[in-house]
Amino acid sequence: MTRVRHNISSGSLPRSGIELAAANPPARSFAFLPRFEPGWVWLTGAGPGDPGLLTLQAYHALQDADVVYFDALISDDILRLIPNDTPRVFVGKRAGHPSLKQPEITSKLVQSARSGCRVLRLKGGDPFVFGRGAEEAIALGAAGVPFRILPGVTAGIGGLAYAGLAVTHRDYNQALTLITAHDALGGLSSALDWEAIARGSPVLVIYMGFRLLDEISKRLIAEGRAADEAVAVVSNASTGKQRTVVTTLENAAEEVKQAGLEPPAMIVVGEIVRLKASLDWAESAFTSIAETQQAAAGI
Amino acid sequence: MTRVRHNISSGSLPRSGIELAAANPPARSFAFLPRFEPGWVWLTGAGPGDPGLLTLQAYHALQDADVVYFDALISDDILRLIPNDTPRVFVGKRAGHPSLKQPEITSKLVQSARSGCRVLRLKGGDPFVFGRGAEEAIALGAAGVPFRILPGVTAGIGGLAYAGLAVTHRDYNQALTLITAHDALGGLSSALDWEAIARGSPVLVIYMGFRLLDEISKRLIAEGRAADEAVAVVSNASTGKQRTVVTTLENAAEEVKQAGLEPPAMIVVGEIVRLKASLDWAESAFTSIAETQQAAAGI
Repeated sequence: MTRVRHNISSGSLPRSGIELAAANPPARSFAFLPRFEPGWVWLTGAGPGDPGLLTLQAYHALQDADVVYFDALISDDILRLIPNDTPRVFVGKRAGHPSLKQPEITSKLVQSARSGCRVLRLKGGDPFVFGRGAEEAIALGAAGVPFRILPGVTAGIGGLAYAGLAVTHRDYNQALTLITAHDALGGLSSALDWEAIARGSPVLVIYMGFRLLDEISKRLIAEGRAADEAVAVVSNASTGKQRTVVTTLENAAEEVKQAGLEPPAMIVVGEIVRLKASLDWAESAFTSIAETQQAAAGI
Repeated sequence: MTRVRHNISSGSLPRSGIELAAANPPARSFAFLPRFEPGWVWLTGAGPGDPGLLTLQAYHALQDADVVYFDALISDDILRLIPNDTPRVFVGKRAGHPSLKQPEITSKLVQSARSGCRVLRLKGGDPFVFGRGAEEAIALGAAGVPFRILPGVTAGIGGLAYAGLAVTHRDYNQALTLITAHDALGGLSSALDWEAIARGSPVLVIYMGFRLLDEISKRLIAEGRAADEAVAVVSNASTGKQRTVVTTLENAAEEVKQAGLEPPAMIVVGEIVRLKASLDWAESAFTSIAETQQAAAGI
């Protein structure tokens, strides 16, 4: 029993039981969306993976773009939303392959924009959260290329919600710290004041820290966090491949290894992890997503 | 010159110069979105204000909901996207008016769900960032009401982007701390370790801190942050009423007062604020939003 969704409606439409024909939408419905002009670069956050977490802006920009430059973390489900005839260019990093350097990426964006394209630069999560979005934007501005930022849902907040993890709760924390833990060489960052971070925020969310989980855990314990403090590690958050390990600081590295988890993964440290059992809406939701996708594929 | 947007397209459509008729979309386009079943409550993040920042999930849920319970911070532009015949119930806090207590809100949600409605609970930003979303979800679960979390763009990241403020930049910070600064009585929270927070993160984003700006600034300076450190205060981020004051810790309270800024406002403390001039895409973008809205209103 498929139910055809009506996609646009600012007026009233019948809404239950009946099979709805896709409505012919009034032209003004999405008039609030920005217009994608030729020669512009839109730095766009794709969210953590679930295409339903794309913003309206981002979704429509994907339809209007003349070319899409995308990172490694963009899910296939999102790439499938790009029209077939729109060129897409992979500019991400892949283990074991030579990857483009930042100036090379910027140079491609500038070149495309100058040739009159509407250039969509698609980045995982939010472009301003540990994504080099600010660097790219500044470089575009310096080259005289007009740009716009399209914020996205960041994995460390919205992705974790798909694992029943709330990053704040009034009884647990009034501060939340987001961290990227590695330095340029992939080691544990010495630019971070680990002692202050450990003490300052009851909840820590660590991006791109998967391979450093052992060092991070030990460091946080050394700086005063309880060895039995709750930790969750969520790989491929909000996608069909999502997997979660709930553990403690002292056991995190070992248990994640035993579970065979793979990056990309988000790490959350804090007692709020213990609320997961009360917040775990996602398992049933995922079942329904999977069913829907199977139904769609069967059409 | 209005350009009709095509709203759904997984196939190819002509894309420039020509006036596009609203396409009759293939039924499967949005099959990846979760199905809103009767008796469920969807705790939904509305983002910071710009309706273009609604996720696809949230937008479609607004079309399908049987009733919408919304907070004070939901912008009119977003409320306008709810179909005319969908009942909407204000459950927010408004200065000078008696407001519903949390258990009363939860009780309304439970009652609606039990009567077989698809209940959309619409919260500003992201439901799990200082929004009591976790509390509401846990209460729903305890009452046996199935719920789903629809993450949103949080104002302290995506809203600030509309003021040319990137909350992270590789040269500035590997840690970002989000804070809600007030206690239950509206005073400066003593639950926070201000010393560790001041030291731990080069960028601090403060939610609901507008009326405490003077205390917060003084406290951060007392704990070691530079008096001339850059600060931005952004009211009504991402809406047509957005206003920004760029200042320093020592001058923040005075300059914000002189500028006549009003809450809701986000505060960001950190030297990344000085990148604003290089990242300020938003002013031109707002002009184009305003023009588009005028054009739309004139139809």
